[in-house]
Amino acid sequence: MKKTSFTIAGLAFLVAAASSLVQGQSAAPASEAPRYVKGTNLVRPPDYREWVFISSGLGMDYNPTPNARESPSFGNVFVNPSSYREFMKTGKWPDKTTFVLEFRGSTSEGSINKGGRFQTQLRGVEAEVKDSTFKDGWAFFNFGPANALQDSAEPLPDDAGCRECHTKNTAVERTFVQFYPTLLEVARKMKTVKPGF
Amino acid sequence: MKKTSFTIAGLAFLVAAASSLVQGQSAAPASEAPRYVKGTNLVRPPDYREWVFISSGLGMDYNPTPNARESPSFGNVFVNPSSYREFMKTGKWPDKTTFVLEFRGSTSEGSINKGGRFQTQLRGVEAEVKDSTFKDGWAFFNFGPANALQDSAEPLPDDAGCRECHTKNTAVERTFVQFYPTLLEVARKMKTVKPGF
Repeated sequence: MKKTSFTIAGLAFLVAAASSLVQGQSAAPASEAPRYVKGTNLVRPPDYREWVFISSGLGMDYNPTPNARESPSFGNVFVNPSSYREFMKTGKWPDKTTFVLEFRGSTSEGSINKGGRFQTQLRGVEAEVKDSTFKDGWAFFNFGPANALQDSAEPLPDDAGCRECHTKNTAVERTFVQFYPTLLEVARKMKTVKPGF
Repeated sequence: MKKTSFTIAGLAFLVAAASSLVQGQSAAPASEAPRYVKGTNLVRPPDYREWVFISSGLGMDYNPTPNARESPSFGNVFVNPSSYREFMKTGKWPDKTTFVLEFRGSTSEGSINKGGRFQTQLRGVEAEVKDSTFKDGWAFFNFGPANALQDSAEPLPDDAGCRECHTKNTAVERTFVQFYPTLLEVARKMKTVKPGF
């Protein structure tokens, strides 16, 4: 019985390896690949809270003259697990990688906490996808604020600010790896960071 | 071949189910269970960054008169995946659950960021374990600061502050679920929060 089981596993491995060769590069497995409806509308990944956490920030602001906010948001970034493992080996994102950016409110006083801030209710969910079926290989999505969260979202238009910013200011490909310390270390080692980082 | 493979899977399931019955309750699978050396010294989980992220806080301070800090730490909390899934179903932590609390530095100015704070270098790693082999079922560990991080750590003594605080002030069992919004929602539904939360 054991031998048969190994044979099945071996077969599955060969099929996966062959499929990878055909594609010419690694890609996230089908179970983690982005799902679309109406062509290119991304379905909000239902299980992103079980994906790999990349990092979080509080009240981050790219505005040259940032506004002090009374209740800044935490931003939690998640990526599908197989793409994370691939990045930790190569410093590159495989095709079909999905990133979810989740915004949450924050508060200082609550229970025994008296200083700093902790996370509270959901404020919004956005996503970024590396997918060669899009024009330049990347697409951005906004599922809207928490009180009107959409199950799917269309790709943001070419002139959306996020697209330009993720092209000009990111350390690795279209991703802000400069803000993700565990990934930055790997990207530096693998020499996949852009000049200047 | 397919039938044989299902038989093996079925057998594995029966063994797992029987083992769960013998234990009288659910528990994290062996692969995720805490590992000890020298009896009760916890081995730092090598893959905790791939575990499920519970939440993070910035500069949280339980001191009634908190000190403003120039460079507050982010605290990221992770839990082993099977225990997370069990909690999301029941609002309770299974035996052999491990929590990792990771501290990271923070900064405001970096790359294009001008406001708020993002995470930087590792500052320290701590853990909390629910394990019935300990006197009251819970143990706390400190792997030390990042520049002297230990591969394993002994349980903190009975009079350690964390033990008392995690007994008196936590919303669910010995865990600060009041600071983890996605878990708090489940615990309220399952009525596993302590009175007052």
